[in-house]
Amino acid sequence: MARHVRFHETGGPEVLRIEEVPTPEPKAGEVRISVRALGLNRADSMYRTGRYVIEPQFPATMGYEASGVIDAIGPEVKELNVGDAVSVIPAFMFDQYGLYGDLVIAPARAVVKNPDTVSWEAAAATWMPFTTVWGALIDLAKLGKGDYVVLSAASSSLGLAALQVANFVGATAIAITRKGEKVEELKSAGFAHIIQTGLDDVTAEIMKITDGAGARVVFDPVGGPDFEGIVKGTSKDAFVFIYGALSHDITPIPVLHVLAKHTTIRGYEFIEVTADDEKLARAKAFITDGLAKGVFSPQIAKVFPFEEIVEATRFLESNTQFGKIVVTL
Amino acid sequence: MARHVRFHETGGPEVLRIEEVPTPEPKAGEVRISVRALGLNRADSMYRTGRYVIEPQFPATMGYEASGVIDAIGPEVKELNVGDAVSVIPAFMFDQYGLYGDLVIAPARAVVKNPDTVSWEAAAATWMPFTTVWGALIDLAKLGKGDYVVLSAASSSLGLAALQVANFVGATAIAITRKGEKVEELKSAGFAHIIQTGLDDVTAEIMKITDGAGARVVFDPVGGPDFEGIVKGTSKDAFVFIYGALSHDITPIPVLHVLAKHTTIRGYEFIEVTADDEKLARAKAFITDGLAKGVFSPQIAKVFPFEEIVEATRFLESNTQFGKIVVTL
Repeated sequence: MARHVRFHETGGPEVLRIEEVPTPEPKAGEVRISVRALGLNRADSMYRTGRYVIEPQFPATMGYEASGVIDAIGPEVKELNVGDAVSVIPAFMFDQYGLYGDLVIAPARAVVKNPDTVSWEAAAATWMPFTTVWGALIDLAKLGKGDYVVLSAASSSLGLAALQVANFVGATAIAITRKGEKVEELKSAGFAHIIQTGLDDVTAEIMKITDGAGARVVFDPVGGPDFEGIVKGTSKDAFVFIYGALSHDITPIPVLHVLAKHTTIRGYEFIEVTADDEKLARAKAFITDGLAKGVFSPQIAKVFPFEEIVEATRFLESNTQFGKIVVTL
Repeated sequence: MARHVRFHETGGPEVLRIEEVPTPEPKAGEVRISVRALGLNRADSMYRTGRYVIEPQFPATMGYEASGVIDAIGPEVKELNVGDAVSVIPAFMFDQYGLYGDLVIAPARAVVKNPDTVSWEAAAATWMPFTTVWGALIDLAKLGKGDYVVLSAASSSLGLAALQVANFVGATAIAITRKGEKVEELKSAGFAHIIQTGLDDVTAEIMKITDGAGARVVFDPVGGPDFEGIVKGTSKDAFVFIYGALSHDITPIPVLHVLAKHTTIRGYEFIEVTADDEKLARAKAFITDGLAKGVFSPQIAKVFPFEEIVEATRFLESNTQFGKIVVTL
């Protein structure tokens, strides 16, 4: 038997139950993983409360970030073996697989071997943020030596991953955060430049930090009224990625700047990487390299035991954490 | 001697004077052209009134669209000969060359041979709009068979050129114009689909025309409040070019659409083509092909004789024309 976290109705964290289910068997192209750590994701909460793009079918399970040991292998699986220490990249939908459990199935294409030096907790917390960052900053914007990249909502696990990716390729990251919010944590995480909206003149600060050149890349999940000032701080031929809509206010384009500087503003989702085998392979190689070298080390807010999945989920939804919430088995 | 249009102070069209000047001699990399037709441009007016990015130095001349016959050749000029019928592409600044005259100098890299079948008037009216359109729609967006392209301010010489470029590559153009404005002219120009802002639901009309798929390319010099509805009518992975700022209202991004559809919004200027020798060569080849096949034929609003340059300029600034204003010598 296996133990899976399931829910039988939409609702708050309390609808989650740990239940005994028959041990699942891997089909063609699938592996079974003995899970050691799970990463919690905001999408998990949206799915559980019925506000996600997919409706849960009950009893429903979920989760798409995990690390563990391969325990069984289905037909047609290459390059993976029983006993491999691996992580799962969220390259599937909630209604296809769910990783909240001790023995779970994942598609082999979404599985990547862990470097020896990486802990189970770090492995579980790596792939969603780093794959997302890689697709925008490295694959599309070709971020590299000498570039400046502006990171809005810098204290999110994506912002923190983007800082490490920027450092890895010789670029300089500039954090944008709300006035007074998590400034000390951002400094500890390694940000040399922190701009506070509601306090600083965002455009002027970016121009000062970049010696008047402007930033070549922006990675922004917020939008809203601060967007204009950030874009006005970009250089010629800049890439501005919108990867979220945290602000509910309108997001105006600074048209004269965008015209004169030939700015690209681009809506971006990590599915652009995970749905494409070739991109996914390059993302795996890049991130495994950074992990193996010890340069990528995801910020972990707090670790909970599996039995406390409800408490872990409540902490996720409190929005007070700095980094990823991880559950261990 | 030569006759050039010059001005000795900024001001209205009346500051323009036709004056005798010594016949200019081409230097290295330059040719002298005996001008047959001139295209008038909105930038000419901005320069003359002192509202352009470059300040005129008096006495000033101007103009950067013309056709004519090569009359003399400077050193180091290849592939062009005295007697060639040519056009000039605006690939230089007002303070470098001015084409408003009967014998003028142009840089050889900005000169292209005319196909035999093209009139002087059409040749002078072709290169600014078609080069601009090529850079966005063909070079960047790879517009092709089966694509839909939405053209805002469709009655401009750029909108009309974009219609012909779309037809040439097997794409379908959708005109956006203001309620009641120039609708009959747009039909005569060949638009099968015309959407009127202030009357139609722009998103719904685009979706209807495209059978629910949305348009893959937008070419918009307006921005402002209509922008959102146009972008919401685009397909997955669409290119939305902003190439002007005719609206003075704010231009909001429809963030959720842009996120879900991975939309690219891109500020664009034709200097991206004209400053790049390789791109310019490909633009010349593409446009010469369309001209030679008779598919590209710029809309000409009215032709004035050279002596009426002041009246021609007044008509340009009336904003009532449909197509290009041409002056002949």
